[in-house]
Amino acid sequence: MKQLVTNATLLTFAGPDEPRAGAAASNVGLIRQGAVLMDEGVIVAAGPADKVLAHPDSRKGRVHDAGGRVVMPGFVDAHTHPAFAEPRLRDFELRAQGKTYQEIAAAGGGIISSVSALRGTTERDLTVLLQERAARFIECGTTTIEAKSGYGLDKDSELKSLRALKHLGAGGMLGVVPTFLGPHAVPPEYQGRTGEYARFMAREVLPVVAEEKLALYADVFCERGYFGAAECTDFLQAARAAGLGLRVHAEQLTHSGGAKLAARLKACTADHLDHADDDDLGALKAAGTVACLVPGSNHFLGLGSMPPARRILDAGVPVALATDFNPGTCPCWNMQEILAIAVTRMKMSPEEALVSATVNGAWAAGLGKTHGVLAVGQAADLVIYDCEDYRELCYWFGKNLAVTVFKAGKVVHSTAELRV
Amino acid sequence: MKQLVTNATLLTFAGPDEPRAGAAASNVGLIRQGAVLMDEGVIVAAGPADKVLAHPDSRKGRVHDAGGRVVMPGFVDAHTHPAFAEPRLRDFELRAQGKTYQEIAAAGGGIISSVSALRGTTERDLTVLLQERAARFIECGTTTIEAKSGYGLDKDSELKSLRALKHLGAGGMLGVVPTFLGPHAVPPEYQGRTGEYARFMAREVLPVVAEEKLALYADVFCERGYFGAAECTDFLQAARAAGLGLRVHAEQLTHSGGAKLAARLKACTADHLDHADDDDLGALKAAGTVACLVPGSNHFLGLGSMPPARRILDAGVPVALATDFNPGTCPCWNMQEILAIAVTRMKMSPEEALVSATVNGAWAAGLGKTHGVLAVGQAADLVIYDCEDYRELCYWFGKNLAVTVFKAGKVVHSTAELRV
Repeated sequence: MKQLVTNATLLTFAGPDEPRAGAAASNVGLIRQGAVLMDEGVIVAAGPADKVLAHPDSRKGRVHDAGGRVVMPGFVDAHTHPAFAEPRLRDFELRAQGKTYQEIAAAGGGIISSVSALRGTTERDLTVLLQERAARFIECGTTTIEAKSGYGLDKDSELKSLRALKHLGAGGMLGVVPTFLGPHAVPPEYQGRTGEYARFMAREVLPVVAEEKLALYADVFCERGYFGAAECTDFLQAARAAGLGLRVHAEQLTHSGGAKLAARLKACTADHLDHADDDDLGALKAAGTVACLVPGSNHFLGLGSMPPARRILDAGVPVALATDFNPGTCPCWNMQEILAIAVTRMKMSPEEALVSATVNGAWAAGLGKTHGVLAVGQAADLVIYDCEDYRELCYWFGKNLAVTVFKAGKVVHSTAELRV
Repeated sequence: MKQLVTNATLLTFAGPDEPRAGAAASNVGLIRQGAVLMDEGVIVAAGPADKVLAHPDSRKGRVHDAGGRVVMPGFVDAHTHPAFAEPRLRDFELRAQGKTYQEIAAAGGGIISSVSALRGTTERDLTVLLQERAARFIECGTTTIEAKSGYGLDKDSELKSLRALKHLGAGGMLGVVPTFLGPHAVPPEYQGRTGEYARFMAREVLPVVAEEKLALYADVFCERGYFGAAECTDFLQAARAAGLGLRVHAEQLTHSGGAKLAARLKACTADHLDHADDDDLGALKAAGTVACLVPGSNHFLGLGSMPPARRILDAGVPVALATDFNPGTCPCWNMQEILAIAVTRMKMSPEEALVSATVNGAWAAGLGKTHGVLAVGQAADLVIYDCEDYRELCYWFGKNLAVTVFKAGKVVHSTAELRV
């Protein structure tokens, strides 16, 4: 069905066909009195309402009067770990009591507790959990997520996670870009044999992932005490040879070489980057790698520090913002919350934050040519928000202003009515 | 109409008839398989479902099957400034650019910009704004707010603010405890004449507030550069003589004597307390004054520090959590967000946070004998949340899990359906 959104304060993010850096990182493409016409899952007209209404099909569709509200592309959340079985409530309590990561792990918590729970969950049950979580993402204005495996850490459980993500994506309500994150942590049965575990993932699991087309990307946790640069390189090169794109968890806890590795392999994204130095940023810029920042995890862990967004922007590296949705360090599915954290704690401008959450998010998810921008031929993924000034999306916090969410031209969420 | 909520994971907060401190500050009164029966605006039975279902009226009402979900008292948000005309989006941007409070004020921002906007808004328009904001509070599970004037700073505008709050409260959807905060800042026309302004508020405005019963409380901003202890004392003593209860903005920016002042006058609350010392806490404890903490403003301002919740709790002072909802330093209406900040950044336990947001919030709003607890004879203000473990209310952040909200026994908000 054709759908027409009129009377919109439109943010198109129209611009060069590349991740936005430098001055372009602040350009939201604002059109007051804008409109968007959708058909067959794509945008057939977008721009000033008088021009869109001149389109011959503009009178044939269902009309959504935005009443002057903000309309913009759905968020593309380019870093999530949704394939988990249970929230980690006990860890959360222990952390509030001042317990360290080591003490929490010793008490049976940490990532290994998620691994144990995930292994005990069926593909069917995991799919249902993912569908419930997807509804949360959608109602907050996210229309696509990059979604990682990585709580299975054995062949069957990693494949189960990716298959469940495939079922989720097949539903069509929420776009899913699946990522194989076998080297997320070393499971107990491989303790002390990190290299062997990474090789097992590359030789035994990756071929099945590729054969069944279960993932578009491969990712690694490059960090001291987890996977070193050499192990990560071997795994990622195997992934590239198998046809997957690359991502790297880089410089989160320490300066460990992940950013330079990502640049050397021309990975799509380097993620976290809390400890990235200027050399790292130069390498990322030269490689065209997107810096995917996830400040929600710093917030949830109560850290005093944040990823160095300003330094990264000033270096001319394109920035994507993502939730890092996961049960241990960031139980947040709401990109509007990440926008607020980005401005209040990373000192991004509202415009930079919005570009990072849409068009740059799309590039960070490998969808830059088709998503994240409201322009003819692009995916009809867009959201009407209950505000007339786009800065409000970053200003109010702990909130959800999404009122109507379109995915591929279909309404996938709507509050009861628009109060026009 | 009678209403029955069954199949609930019930948090009653039943306990001693006083603000909770010490061990009682952690007691949520959990009842699995609980139920609540409401009639005529109050609770007529609450407890284990089998006992509640034995009540003769239990079959006569509308039944809400909570499906095992958490059911607890509505939040009582005991510190809000909702009577403003406009969000301060420009200040927000400038702060992200690293501008100081002084630079923002020089650019035409800061509280004086809110004063100017409020003075130019009619009582009717302000009432509509308050109603829209009330809907946001309600949908997030807040059933009562303490609400301050304080952006008028002249006689007509302060009275206009309080009258608009009275209209809001009369609607019955959201409980409103109005507070007269004339000495919030010194308006431009009284610059350099702080004492004269405070006396004007006490002698010319307060009598009308009292006469028209426009406020239940009086509040002052006790701070260096704002109102000193002597000025605050004079104003608050006049307010007490006029029949109002007392509250004090204390020790927010510097250690200025507000906490001891609150204790000496046996104020209902001392609010903020970022810089309170152990002597202050001893005085508050002895006075029975509730420490009302508003960490959302620290978060929004990007401060590294938080109110010293653990030290306050350890001193045996009862703690209430509130939003501080206001356009300058905390544009957040969602108490669930404050719970998350309280645990992640102030290291409160989930139980302490929940007690602080309900029963202690009620005491901090002067409603401790009738609100904040699910027990026979108490106000039927309660909320069904879409989680089965109450810790989830603090754990997920940037979210709203409220599905059905009852105010005085009536449904005032409900999502489309419960997914049982």
